Amino acid sequence: MDVDPVSSQEPAAETEEKWRAIAAEKKQKQLDSIPKEWLITPPPEDRINVLDVPSECGLLTSREMEITNEVDVAALLAKLASGEWSSVEVTTAFYKRAVIAHQVVNCLTEIFVERALARAAELDEYLKTNGKPIGPLHGLPISLKDQFTMKGLETVMGWVSWIGKVSESDCVLVELLYQCGAVPFVRTNVPQTLFWGETHNSVFGRTLNPHNRNLTPGGSSGGEGALIAMRGSPLGVGTDIGGSVRIPAAFCNIYSLRPSYERLPYQGARNTGEGQESISSTIGPMSNSLSGIKVFVKAILDMKPWLKDPLVPKMPWNEPAYQLVEHGNGVGLCFGFMVDDGLFKPQPPLYRAMEMTKKALIAAGHTVIEWEPKKHLEIFINCNSIYFADDGENLRRECEATDEPLLQTMHPEELLVELDDASMPYERHVVRDLGHLTTYELWELHKEKRQLRKEYLDHWMGTVERTGTGRPVDAIICPAAPYPAPLHGHNRNAWYTTIWNALDYTVAVLPVTYVDPKLDVQHPPHKFRNHEDQWIYESYDPSSYEGCPIGLQVVGQRQEEEAVIAIAEIVERALKASPS
Amino acid sequence: MDVDPVSSQEPAAETEEKWRAIAAEKKQKQLDSIPKEWLITPPPEDRINVLDVPSECGLLTSREMEITNEVDVAALLAKLASGEWSSVEVTTAFYKRAVIAHQVVNCLTEIFVERALARAAELDEYLKTNGKPIGPLHGLPISLKDQFTMKGLETVMGWVSWIGKVSESDCVLVELLYQCGAVPFVRTNVPQTLFWGETHNSVFGRTLNPHNRNLTPGGSSGGEGALIAMRGSPLGVGTDIGGSVRIPAAFCNIYSLRPSYERLPYQGARNTGEGQESISSTIGPMSNSLSGIKVFVKAILDMKPWLKDPLVPKMPWNEPAYQLVEHGNGVGLCFGFMVDDGLFKPQPPLYRAMEMTKKALIAAGHTVIEWEPKKHLEIFINCNSIYFADDGENLRRECEATDEPLLQTMHPEELLVELDDASMPYERHVVRDLGHLTTYELWELHKEKRQLRKEYLDHWMGTVERTGTGRPVDAIICPAAPYPAPLHGHNRNAWYTTIWNALDYTVAVLPVTYVDPKLDVQHPPHKFRNHEDQWIYESYDPSSYEGCPIGLQVVGQRQEEEAVIAIAEIVERALKASPS
Repeated sequence: MDVDPVSSQEPAAETEEKWRAIAAEKKQKQLDSIPKEWLITPPPEDRINVLDVPSECGLLTSREMEITNEVDVAALLAKLASGEWSSVEVTTAFYKRAVIAHQVVNCLTEIFVERALARAAELDEYLKTNGKPIGPLHGLPISLKDQFTMKGLETVMGWVSWIGKVSESDCVLVELLYQCGAVPFVRTNVPQTLFWGETHNSVFGRTLNPHNRNLTPGGSSGGEGALIAMRGSPLGVGTDIGGSVRIPAAFCNIYSLRPSYERLPYQGARNTGEGQESISSTIGPMSNSLSGIKVFVKAILDMKPWLKDPLVPKMPWNEPAYQLVEHGNGVGLCFGFMVDDGLFKPQPPLYRAMEMTKKALIAAGHTVIEWEPKKHLEIFINCNSIYFADDGENLRRECEATDEPLLQTMHPEELLVELDDASMPYERHVVRDLGHLTTYELWELHKEKRQLRKEYLDHWMGTVERTGTGRPVDAIICPAAPYPAPLHGHNRNAWYTTIWNALDYTVAVLPVTYVDPKLDVQHPPHKFRNHEDQWIYESYDPSSYEGCPIGLQVVGQRQEEEAVIAIAEIVERALKASPS
Repeated sequence: MDVDPVSSQEPAAETEEKWRAIAAEKKQKQLDSIPKEWLITPPPEDRINVLDVPSECGLLTSREMEITNEVDVAALLAKLASGEWSSVEVTTAFYKRAVIAHQVVNCLTEIFVERALARAAELDEYLKTNGKPIGPLHGLPISLKDQFTMKGLETVMGWVSWIGKVSESDCVLVELLYQCGAVPFVRTNVPQTLFWGETHNSVFGRTLNPHNRNLTPGGSSGGEGALIAMRGSPLGVGTDIGGSVRIPAAFCNIYSLRPSYERLPYQGARNTGEGQESISSTIGPMSNSLSGIKVFVKAILDMKPWLKDPLVPKMPWNEPAYQLVEHGNGVGLCFGFMVDDGLFKPQPPLYRAMEMTKKALIAAGHTVIEWEPKKHLEIFINCNSIYFADDGENLRRECEATDEPLLQTMHPEELLVELDDASMPYERHVVRDLGHLTTYELWELHKEKRQLRKEYLDHWMGTVERTGTGRPVDAIICPAAPYPAPLHGHNRNAWYTTIWNALDYTVAVLPVTYVDPKLDVQHPPHKFRNHEDQWIYESYDPSSYEGCPIGLQVVGQRQEEEAVIAIAEIVERALKASPS
């Protein structure tokens, strides 16, 4: 398990030594920031599933286990608001569990126990003095992806060259979380560049999937995914430009929401390709329940984030939208089901998860039609051309300062699988060799993008002819990836998620089932559409996925955050009520 | 009066002849599209003010005069809805007046009388059959800037190379106008490139200001400005990327609204620099009353434009926002007044208009504080660098097809005034010699832009300390230009309007007063900040402006369309109630 990139390396040349030394020093500082009494005896390296380590290691009291096992964030907040559980004890409990998680899946970056507990104590004092909570997230510890700057802390975001740069202010999200009464308490790991569906960088190393440490937790918000799956945080915040809150949620058995561009405030947070406004990264919550997702979105919107972030639309939490008034009040919905996008046929477990969901929804009184993918390849090519329109210039500049190499794979052996067929639309490389586009060329891509978005919108609206509800489909259900969490270095395809970034649709992910090698037998071979499609088919090995969770996406239209949360709740209730 | 660019030219070389011939043919077709019986004996060329030509020429009946003199669009719609006035007679009346206007100020592009009257007749038939109007704009003739494509018509937009290209579909705005029951009836003139605050191109020639034909009506929606000022249209639609609906409104004595990016649907309309998404052009209504502005915005938003245009935010008409619930219900507002942006000191009439407005607002129970401009020069440089980040590539390509020259001035004699002082931030050239930026360079500009927008937002929010209302300032009042409508070729400064495009604030323009050479005496000279500032000072000649209107801007925050309309109504009521 390649947790630490530093120790496992060969002796290196002088410049290489330099960046490695900087990274190693940071990693050591991180280790030093863990209270000694919270260090555990690590489980054997070959232990695959580590979800039970927190309960087994003996570090958590039974009350701390009770607190951290509460996945209903609204219930947790009620206990914090009433004082039944103090913020100090809740924060301590989650902090201990987060640090345990970190020792088995390497999910954290910044650890600042004293600061978080001091904040929690202030909140407890406030409650005692005033007899009421300070805000809607009173006392709740919240984990943050390593992009959300906090005054006095570094924001390394996986770049060696960012080590030692201490933020002078909080980003707007953190400001609002403080106003809401939350306790930002850890920051979590990311892949170098953020442009991978895995989580590995040259500073903090690789994050592992707690369901199976041979597998990736996904990325780029993979630190959050692994941490929350370990119940080391009740609520976390990631970001998503191509699936980065959804892939970890699907691979780690948790919930997430990818909101529309700018609905939640990004101002002041660090990012890759800052200034790329064509297909914006968005902030999204991740949690062990939809309750956590809803609580977060409502709390932030109630703070009027547009008064602090000039890009956030002036759209308050819309309760009628959450009540699904535009979707038949949630009764008799019609879902569009897309198991296969026509480019990359998913592996068998995804078919079973989709079928289970379909049956559950029909049993709950909803209807289902097939969702026909439209121009997904064209959208993919346009979108990917935009992401790398600067030919990776912004990435190379981060590397240049320290000679840190730009990773070209997430594979533990840094083996670059060559995929050179010209018909193959997807590569594993971060930087594609498209050349550095001029502004005019970028504007031409924008024209094409707008046209593709228009066609897709018309396509969606056109389903009104087929739903029988008098409305277009209320949501689309589809895989979040064409496979369950793959082996490290093997998550090469993010197109089931990125399509919705390109179209700016609102998407929730929810857990559906687990891989079952007995049920999920290989499909007969189909006519392969491209090398990637063939690779996905051929690499299916159910035994490697044992116990691996599967989540699906619930896709609503643009700026339908409230409705998508409500529809995801409906899907979840249907699944829970379903005999399968 | 250089109305026709073709006839007044010297004999030209062969390639030049070609594009001139194409343009001349189109211009002749336009002339042929006017019903012969609507041709008038033109007034003498030296007649400056032509506003009374419609009433004097004898072409309009008294009922047609009554119809076209009704500036309250809601009242007009009520008469159309009741059948008191038929759509055919209203459309005929405005069409005749529009054609009269065209003959004296050259404001139209596409003229299609039969088609519009057939549409009006259908609506009359609908009302007769169903006893109710078909939609909120039932029977209303609406003029459109020459960007809004209509099936079966050309959209020339001032480019010779676009002549003969017939649209295969309506743009989304036109689709929605049809659904609302409107009668799109003429299209209106623009400057080549749309990037001028005047209105002149090589196909349709120059549009004149009906208040004083020696002056420009402004631009780029100058055809609309001149037409509506002549009461040749009750309601028009322009677009605005740097002041293009506000400059014509201020120069022509009418009302307009510049909404936030994408609030109204642009999908399918043609544009300059299509694909430039950094600082978006927006669609805005223009009318002889705020009633027209409100009716249009509400009608379009009630049609849920986000179901047809993927970029339009899902924000319905917000009645509580229009009732100013976030602005003290409209009682005791506090305005920020900025007469001088610190870069370009306005000419004397602007000071008087601002002073009149201030007194009127105070008399009406509102308060006023000074608005301090913040980083206007930095924002200007960032914004202008973005507009021309492709070094005019998109403009040159439109010219190349026919060898039509890219105009470098709007001056009738094509005299380029050299402004070569390096300290001078503004030039008259459309294309600045910044070079063609790479994507990375553009993204760097976006980062800077976001930071500047954040600083300005914080600046606005910070006024809460000074207003005495418990709120930040409710709106800013400022000039729409540092001078009244200037002589043709002299409108070189759009920075009083463009600042708000860069910040994406919502802005209404309303008429305030007229230049009065007795009252508006020259200021003593100040320390000039740059050549432009000096030029503005030195070029002040009150006698050239006689009878020239002055409008001001009412600036609200982003996505405050409803509130800004309501606040503009308050300003207007205060001005009407004020003794001055």
